[in-house]
Parts: sequence; structure tokens; C-alpha cells
Amino acid sequence: MLTPDRARILDSDDPGLGHEFVLADGLVYLDGNSLGALARHVPERMSTVVRGEWGEGLIGSWNTADWVGLAARVGDRIGRIIGAGPGTVSVGDSTSVNLYKAASAAMELATGPHVLLTDDANFPSDGYVLSTLAERSGWELRTVAAGDIVTELASGVGVLSITQVDYRTGDRHDLIATTAAAREAGVVTVWDLAHSAGAFDVAVARSGADFAVGCGYKYLNGGPGAPGFLYAAPHVHAGMRNPITGWFGHRRPFDFASGFEPATGIERMRVGTSPILGLAALDAALDVFDRVVLDDLWARGVRLVDHLLEGFGELGLDVVTPVDAASRGSQVSFRHPDAYAIVQALIDRDVVGDFRTPDVARFGVAALYVDFEDIAVALERLRAVLAADLSGYRPRRGPVT
Amino acid sequence: MLTPDRARILDSDDPGLGHEFVLADGLVYLDGNSLGALARHVPERMSTVVRGEWGEGLIGSWNTADWVGLAARVGDRIGRIIGAGPGTVSVGDSTSVNLYKAASAAMELATGPHVLLTDDANFPSDGYVLSTLAERSGWELRTVAAGDIVTELASGVGVLSITQVDYRTGDRHDLIATTAAAREAGVVTVWDLAHSAGAFDVAVARSGADFAVGCGYKYLNGGPGAPGFLYAAPHVHAGMRNPITGWFGHRRPFDFASGFEPATGIERMRVGTSPILGLAALDAALDVFDRVVLDDLWARGVRLVDHLLEGFGELGLDVVTPVDAASRGSQVSFRHPDAYAIVQALIDRDVVGDFRTPDVARFGVAALYVDFEDIAVALERLRAVLAADLSGYRPRRGPVT
Repeated sequence: MLTPDRARILDSDDPGLGHEFVLADGLVYLDGNSLGALARHVPERMSTVVRGEWGEGLIGSWNTADWVGLAARVGDRIGRIIGAGPGTVSVGDSTSVNLYKAASAAMELATGPHVLLTDDANFPSDGYVLSTLAERSGWELRTVAAGDIVTELASGVGVLSITQVDYRTGDRHDLIATTAAAREAGVVTVWDLAHSAGAFDVAVARSGADFAVGCGYKYLNGGPGAPGFLYAAPHVHAGMRNPITGWFGHRRPFDFASGFEPATGIERMRVGTSPILGLAALDAALDVFDRVVLDDLWARGVRLVDHLLEGFGELGLDVVTPVDAASRGSQVSFRHPDAYAIVQALIDRDVVGDFRTPDVARFGVAALYVDFEDIAVALERLRAVLAADLSGYRPRRGPVT
Repeated sequence: MLTPDRARILDSDDPGLGHEFVLADGLVYLDGNSLGALARHVPERMSTVVRGEWGEGLIGSWNTADWVGLAARVGDRIGRIIGAGPGTVSVGDSTSVNLYKAASAAMELATGPHVLLTDDANFPSDGYVLSTLAERSGWELRTVAAGDIVTELASGVGVLSITQVDYRTGDRHDLIATTAAAREAGVVTVWDLAHSAGAFDVAVARSGADFAVGCGYKYLNGGPGAPGFLYAAPHVHAGMRNPITGWFGHRRPFDFASGFEPATGIERMRVGTSPILGLAALDAALDVFDRVVLDDLWARGVRLVDHLLEGFGELGLDVVTPVDAASRGSQVSFRHPDAYAIVQALIDRDVVGDFRTPDVARFGVAALYVDFEDIAVALERLRAVLAADLSGYRPRRGPVT
């Protein structure tokens, strides 16, 4: 098991960027897959946007601070992180609204049977969005086991919509192979990259995926409720339609024309006025990704997770996350009848992970700010917790994915 | 015409709350109907949310800072301002997404013919949303002149969706009379209160309106791209369905249940994770409304607009805003062939209004921070601009409603 001494050596070889984030001394934050940490420079940027751009610039800041172009700039920055080219990522709206728009557009483009395929490992909220959309469009929503997706693709499907990384177990679908199988079967794809973007090399454009959506507040560190994003491959731009036709998706939004004419590219997937405060925080947060070589970051994430996973194994825990790095996200989970109590006891010892019903303890590794010593400390404290009396911990309800 | 001396006397009698806002000395800001000004205490609140709640509290702030309950609290605060009871206003998503949800729910509840009625004075973006929704639902979108709405209601209509205040002219529909006529005709109503909320006494619940939506960044001063809101009358709660079924509209969002079960009340109109940064700014901005008696604020707004409108008339301008306070919003517009140049020349003289195609100069009056001296100064500078050579001003494109 990784010792603190050994961890410090690893950290001096590969120090990460933890110093760029606001994280209390002694805190081991393994919940960046729920809410990413705050980069130190973000408050200053927010202050500039609030006091300067809004307070002093007022309405003129749409031009002088280029609020008009902010969403497109942030989209391109996210694109670089997920392996998508400029002009293919739209930012704004919640992840669910983005999924709604993308899945609706995909269903219109589909030429196959009116079957919307998903898996039982999908994030429940995605299932809620898809089920209503399918029901109202007269489509069948077919839900199969995650392992059966590729086989099922050949059985008559119009659209595939799944989340790449299982939010509980960390199981990862092979984006490239699954998308290839879908394309082979003539199935339009909509990927949810909520637990992928900023966590590992997604290579969304290379995969040939048609659509993808994702979250701004997890590994991208955009802040609570940050705007989500929507990727659409260039080959679908001309044909895709947004079900929610608002003025920011118009070709000339500021002409106030009476008829809707969609923008030519990804912009047509936008809807209303950009949420500037949330977008600005996300924009600032992405600066940190410019200070690393992405491939190095992804490799660092794999090493960190390897140590955590190995340690859990040595502690005799029922790890449900794949050992193979290519088959998992940047998190490690174990099942335990006392998972809730264990997570709470760890939080009381400054190791923050989270509990997912019914019995999963989940620990996310954001390689930008988690370091090897964090992993060693988490393992050390977990060992103590497993030996402690946890009968005082009683379940309560809390939020977040 | 209101003189600065006379204005200062009026201001000393009824001082307003301009001192609570960040507004440069000498600046006359008559564009709060595009982007409301920044209340002085908002940056401090944002700093607390960003540095404290997000940076230090991290994921725990969903509970410790009650981010979970923030949207409902802000909804109730907006409700008080628009005359809606607790538990009837949902906050989050852009105004356009809220219109989409409300109009979709209204169309499902409608028992009349599949005709969606709107007027040609509606904000273009609302028309974009409604036209796609109607087209995809097999409904007719019928667009008539604003003055013909009440007559048309009796001719076979399922849903009425209009904006109460014309964003260009300031013409105001009579919410109470029009809604009564709609109810009489069995028509479900969806009002856009973008230029109403925070500007005058809306009395939305008293009107009997079924649905309403509105904007957080105009008279509510929530900041650029602030979350919008959706009002639904208690009598429609049980039957209404949200077309975008996300986890925050679920009865038990944090159970991660596989099936969607809508929340009982207004909460079912929510979709994804609340945009906490934007919501917090809006929440803080609403504090200023707690420091006034709303009826006094509305009356003050009427007096301010009266003086502006009277002054425009004395300057010989073609005022298109109704003289009758009950028939107008809190803005005054005039048509002029040089409207663009006039607005730009005024901006250069620190009087900020805005231009709307093709020939409208528009001046919004936010009674919280505009004072009588602002009106006098605006009129004085406008008189000078009208006498000046404006040939140097050439049109450019800019944003905002």
C-alpha cells in the first residue's frame, strides 16, 4: 500500500497543480467528480466580471467584454479537453437540457427503427430525460445491461444514448469501439461525458460520435451548477435541429427578425442568453488545463487511481471499479454494507468521498489537484475507519452525482 | 419639462435607492430593462459564495449552505414581487427554456382547438420557441395584432402565449382583463413577464393566469444571463407535465431512483442542477426589493416615467409609449429616423438607453435606482443631442432585449 513517504517521492517527481487550488491543509478531496475544487484565481476573475464588467460596464459589456463571444470561446476550450475541434461545442443550459436537445436532434436524424437504446447503468436523470422524450415521440426506450449494448445495437435501434462512465462503479464504455459498432449499424450516438470530460482522454471527434453532452462542474471545475456543454460532430451540423429555438441559436440574434433561421454550425444548439456569471467561472477554471500537457495529466490520473485501487484491494474491500485503466473512469468505488457510515467517518477525518445508494462508497480522482500523498493519507485513514466503531453514523439525504 | 432643480426637490421627497447600486457619478442608466444595475452588496455575497461556500465548503455546501433549497427560496422571493404565492415560482434555466416548458405544459392541458395564439408584438425569441413547439405538436401558431388578441380568443384557441409588455413600444397588455377573457373562452394562458417583473404591480396570481415566465436580469437586477423563472398557478400543478424531465424535477432527486416521478408542486418544472452562482447573485439582488414598500416603488416608477414621457413630448418626439400608466411598462420609446445615432450620441454623453430596429429609441426606468434628477439630465442632454450634428454615428450590431 502506498505509504506517505513513498507518496512524497512520487509527488516530487510529478507535483501536479494542487497549489493552484483552494484546498485546506490536510483535506483530501476525492469528490471532484461531484463538484470540482476552486482554482485560486477564479474569485479574482469573478470579482472582475461582477464589479467591473457588470457593475461598471453594464449593458456595454456585451460588446466591450465580449460576453457575446464568451460561450463560443468556452466551448472551444472544452473542445480541446475532450478532443473536439473548434466550433463543435456549445456551452450553456444544464446537462439535462443539453441531453434533451441532443437526443431530440439525434432522433430526428436517425434513419433506423424508432428505438432509443440506453443501459441500466446510465445516470438516472438521463433516463428521466430520455424516457419522456421517447414517450412523446412515439419511440421505444429500450434499456439493457451495460455489457449488452454493443450486441443490442445490431437488433434494430435508431439512437444510442448512454453515459460513458458509470457514476457509481466507474465502469467505462469504450467510446471508440462502441461508436464504431453504432455507426456500422446505422445508429446515431449521444454520449454523456459527465464523468469523462477533464478526467481522461475522451477523443470524442476521433470516435466518430454524433453528439455528446457533459457537465461543467465536475472535472472541469466550473463551480456549482456550472453550465453544461453539447458537442455535435461537423457531419451532423447541417441536418441537426434544436427543439428549443431561442434567439441565441438564431443566425442573426440581434436583428430581432420575426422568423427563426438557425445559425449555421454548433451555435444553433444554443437557446437563451448566456449565463455570464457561471460561464465566466467555468472559463477561468479552464485556465488550469492550459498549464499542463493533457496527455501527462491523463497519465498522472491513471497512476493516482492505480494506487488508490490497489490500496482498496489490499484493505480487502470489494472494489467494483475495473483494474484496467482503459475500462474505468477517474474514480474508484467499493461496495460495503456500511458504505454510508464509512464515507461519513472519512469525511469527519477530512477525507471527502461520497456515498451512492444502496451500498457504494465512491472516490473521485481529479488529477489536476489530487496528489499521491492524498492517496496515501486517504488509505491510511480508511484503514483506521474500517477498524473503528461506526454505529453512530445514521443515513441522511444529500444531493449530487 | 422637468428641470434639474425641480427634480432635486422631488428626489429629496422620494429619494429612491440609487445609493444601493454601483452607478458612476454622472451616469444616467436607462437600460435596466436590458441589464439591471449591480446592487452594491452583491459582489460581497458572490465572494462569500465563491470563496467560502464553493472554495471551502465544497460539496458539503449543498447541505451546509443549503444550495438545495436556494432555487425555491429565490422563487418565493420573485413570487412576492410579481404577486404570486409561495411555492408557485420555479427559478433556473433561461427564459426561453422556461417558455418552452410552460407552453408545452399549457398545450397539454388545453381542451380547446390546437391553436396557439400570439401577437406580432411578442419578443421575437418567444415567437421562435412557440413556432417550433407548435410545428412539432401539430398545432397552428396564429399571430395577430396585439390589439386583436381579446377578440381572437373567442374564435377557437387552445393556448394564449404573449409578452405582457412590448419590448419596443412599452405597450402593456391588461393582464387581468385579457386573462379573464381567456378563461371565459377556455384558453390556457402563458404570459411572458420579462419586462414586467420588478417594474410594476403584476398581480399574476390575482389575474388567474395559468403560467408565466420571466427574466432575472432586467428589472430584477440578477446579473448578465441570470436564471429565468416560471410561474404556475396552483390550479394547474396537479395536471402539468414538464417536457424536460430532469432530476431536480423529481419527487426525490437524491434517491437516484430509476423511474421518473414528478415532484408534487412547482418543483416539477425544474430540470437540472441549479446554477448556484447565477442564482446567488439574483438572490442577493432581490434584497433591495425588501427595503421598499412595493406599492410605493410602483408608484414612484409611474411618476418617473410620466416625467420622461412628458419631456419627450415637449421635445416634439414621436413617442410610441402610452401616456396611460396602466397601459404601459416602465419604459418610454420614441420613433425617429435617426434613432440609432441619437442613442449613440446619448451614450457618449453618459445617458444609456438603447436602440431597437428599425427606428426605436428606448429608455427603461428602473425605479429602484433611477431618480428624478436622472430624468431631468437625460432630457437636457437629449435636447442637446437633437440639436447636434449626428452624421458621425453609423449603425453597428449589438445584443440584448
